[in-house]
Amino acid sequence: MGFVRTPMRGMNDFLPENIELREHVMNVIKQTYREFGYTQIETPCVEHIENLIGSHSGENEKLIFKILKRGAKLNVEDFLKNGCDESDLVDSGLRYDLTVPLCRYFSNNFQSLCSPFKALQIGNVWRADRPQKGRFRQFVQCDIDIIGDETLLAEVDLLAAAVCTLTRLGFKNFKIKINDRRILKAIIKKYGLNDVDFNEICVILDKLDKIGFNKIKEELVKISNDVEKIDSLVDFLSNNCNTNNSCKEVCGENFDEFLDKSVIENVDRISDLLKKSSQGFEIVFDPTLVRGLGYYTSTIFEIVTDCAEFSIAGGGRYDDMIGNFLNNKSSIPSCGISIGFERIIHILKSRQDNFCQPTDKIVYLVDKDIPNDELLKIYSNACKQRENGTQVLIVAKKKNIGHQKEMLAKQGYTKFF
Amino acid sequence: MGFVRTPMRGMNDFLPENIELREHVMNVIKQTYREFGYTQIETPCVEHIENLIGSHSGENEKLIFKILKRGAKLNVEDFLKNGCDESDLVDSGLRYDLTVPLCRYFSNNFQSLCSPFKALQIGNVWRADRPQKGRFRQFVQCDIDIIGDETLLAEVDLLAAAVCTLTRLGFKNFKIKINDRRILKAIIKKYGLNDVDFNEICVILDKLDKIGFNKIKEELVKISNDVEKIDSLVDFLSNNCNTNNSCKEVCGENFDEFLDKSVIENVDRISDLLKKSSQGFEIVFDPTLVRGLGYYTSTIFEIVTDCAEFSIAGGGRYDDMIGNFLNNKSSIPSCGISIGFERIIHILKSRQDNFCQPTDKIVYLVDKDIPNDELLKIYSNACKQRENGTQVLIVAKKKNIGHQKEMLAKQGYTKFF
Repeated sequence: MGFVRTPMRGMNDFLPENIELREHVMNVIKQTYREFGYTQIETPCVEHIENLIGSHSGENEKLIFKILKRGAKLNVEDFLKNGCDESDLVDSGLRYDLTVPLCRYFSNNFQSLCSPFKALQIGNVWRADRPQKGRFRQFVQCDIDIIGDETLLAEVDLLAAAVCTLTRLGFKNFKIKINDRRILKAIIKKYGLNDVDFNEICVILDKLDKIGFNKIKEELVKISNDVEKIDSLVDFLSNNCNTNNSCKEVCGENFDEFLDKSVIENVDRISDLLKKSSQGFEIVFDPTLVRGLGYYTSTIFEIVTDCAEFSIAGGGRYDDMIGNFLNNKSSIPSCGISIGFERIIHILKSRQDNFCQPTDKIVYLVDKDIPNDELLKIYSNACKQRENGTQVLIVAKKKNIGHQKEMLAKQGYTKFF
Repeated sequence: MGFVRTPMRGMNDFLPENIELREHVMNVIKQTYREFGYTQIETPCVEHIENLIGSHSGENEKLIFKILKRGAKLNVEDFLKNGCDESDLVDSGLRYDLTVPLCRYFSNNFQSLCSPFKALQIGNVWRADRPQKGRFRQFVQCDIDIIGDETLLAEVDLLAAAVCTLTRLGFKNFKIKINDRRILKAIIKKYGLNDVDFNEICVILDKLDKIGFNKIKEELVKISNDVEKIDSLVDFLSNNCNTNNSCKEVCGENFDEFLDKSVIENVDRISDLLKKSSQGFEIVFDPTLVRGLGYYTSTIFEIVTDCAEFSIAGGGRYDDMIGNFLNNKSSIPSCGISIGFERIIHILKSRQDNFCQPTDKIVYLVDKDIPNDELLKIYSNACKQRENGTQVLIVAKKKNIGHQKEMLAKQGYTKFF
């Protein structure tokens, strides 16, 4: 077998200049979230295959990087003779999000955790997606979650923390879209669609940005043949998706039959509290907001910005997910938001801002046959200079010293000895 | 399939209090290495299976977490009919060290990198080892490497940076052991052993700490039947393994036939420069030092401390490894040192030092039916307090408020409102 020089398809070698920006963004995120009282946790990158497959619909299974059993548990020859299917070969996989590991983590450790538990998790996840521009097979996710708070304090806290982080990263005039899965359900019922099709309808609505209302209609007709109902539903959504009206103004009393009033009040109170407590952004009720994932149970939200077509953060409430890991399957109030780390890096990179701290960086260029005492003098100077945090490079002089200095200057070295 | 609550065998869920120490250590390492001019890079956790298997002897293959091919490239049914062996199923695996990915990275990116290239890499690696106390299947490695410097400036720089890092982490009176694979080879030749057995002999000598000189003798006899020669060899090693003598004092002119004098001078000059330029540690020549891995070509070193049986850092020169990835297989001067991150965490944890910064941490305890205007006042205060970095938690009041405050105090919250 020959050696392969390129990284695995869809995965990245990060050059030093990439890392500088990534570290800067990561530090702002960590620092801000800490100030809001989130505590950092870490889960293994490898997760039980049962947890990965069980937590989502079959749709995502093909995106999982699956890991072969090891040692005595795997016998390929035997498998060839008697094996039935893949599950005889595989016991685990790389996590494809941070929410499933968080739920496992909480169910495994809740006795040592405070309540409500405010978790910050930053780490790589893997998806065997078709690699595209800005879409990778290994990428960083940054999640904060509050477990054990059923009040809207959770939603407000998560969104305020995300807003503060984005502001500190230089984002301005972004927009939070908010909705509630229960409102979506009420709308669907009101317009006469069958709520057993709810998940399927969500998958269709989630494509709105890509395909537009006309195509949405076409796809919905495949589910329900009642074109008139679907027309009214889509008209309602298109008339109310881009307004500044409150949830109460949009919904009025139209859905009272299918919806507890407190749900509408909840959305408006979250919006109101955020508007009045933070600045530099809009928050709007958007009845077309769906969020792709099936596990959300009520509030959902997304943050969008003018400078990108895609959302830069998103999340919601998933009160039923941790129950999967508990014997009594009980519902545990859980709410989280995920910042699109790679998307933010992509935007900031294109802005060409300079995040390096403009400190002195010193180089000592050393002759190859330098005597010990001179070299020791350099080591001693460097040691003192590093004590106050200065970056000091000691490096052998090259033949082409002009070119060497040029390259070092590009890396930000300013003083040469 | 049921959900599994515990993490994968040998892998860890880190609680917030674990993370605090890990982050502290990681920041000290990053900051110190940066001051020495190392630039951070990142490689994917998933590596081509060819690179993983090709870079080491077969011994390590069973330790690799192997990843199943995906999509059209994998057809289990077809495999069951026509498959031959595992390589039909697998195309990649989790990296089990950072050196193999670094070599691939350098060969893939050298045109964009400065020379010499001083790399810092921190990241998870995976080994399907038998889990033991302090030995995990997912663990962090911290490597610095210098590629493209054939002079001893590289060895001195790597060791000085590691010494500075360990000192800043509170380690005192540690010991650097240094040797050179070429000296080992000369010793083996001088005492009449066959140098085609060199790697096998190294594997035996590497077990010295565990099995002692008598067992070493027994095992060496299995390779060469000449008991007398082996007695002399082991006597030489045992007489010289724990002295403060320089390499020249130990070797004298005994090995001149098999060894260029400059090799001995090189070891002594590295030791001398380090002794005179840094403080708080010893550096000794140890002819029994082997380092397990086969890829080292000359200088090897290890750092040990009184407070642990195991070494806390180790490395050496591996000039032939990057060549594997280049078409012309050329030799590229490469030298690196790896700090045992998990071992350091283990030692620091047992010391119970407190690494938290003793800053104010504030809590606002909020009634569930608090009116908007009061809540907004709290949000506004919190916002101001966070601006200067204070950690502020806003949380719903629990029924048992005494217990709640107690739990919060344990997390370091000092002011309650």
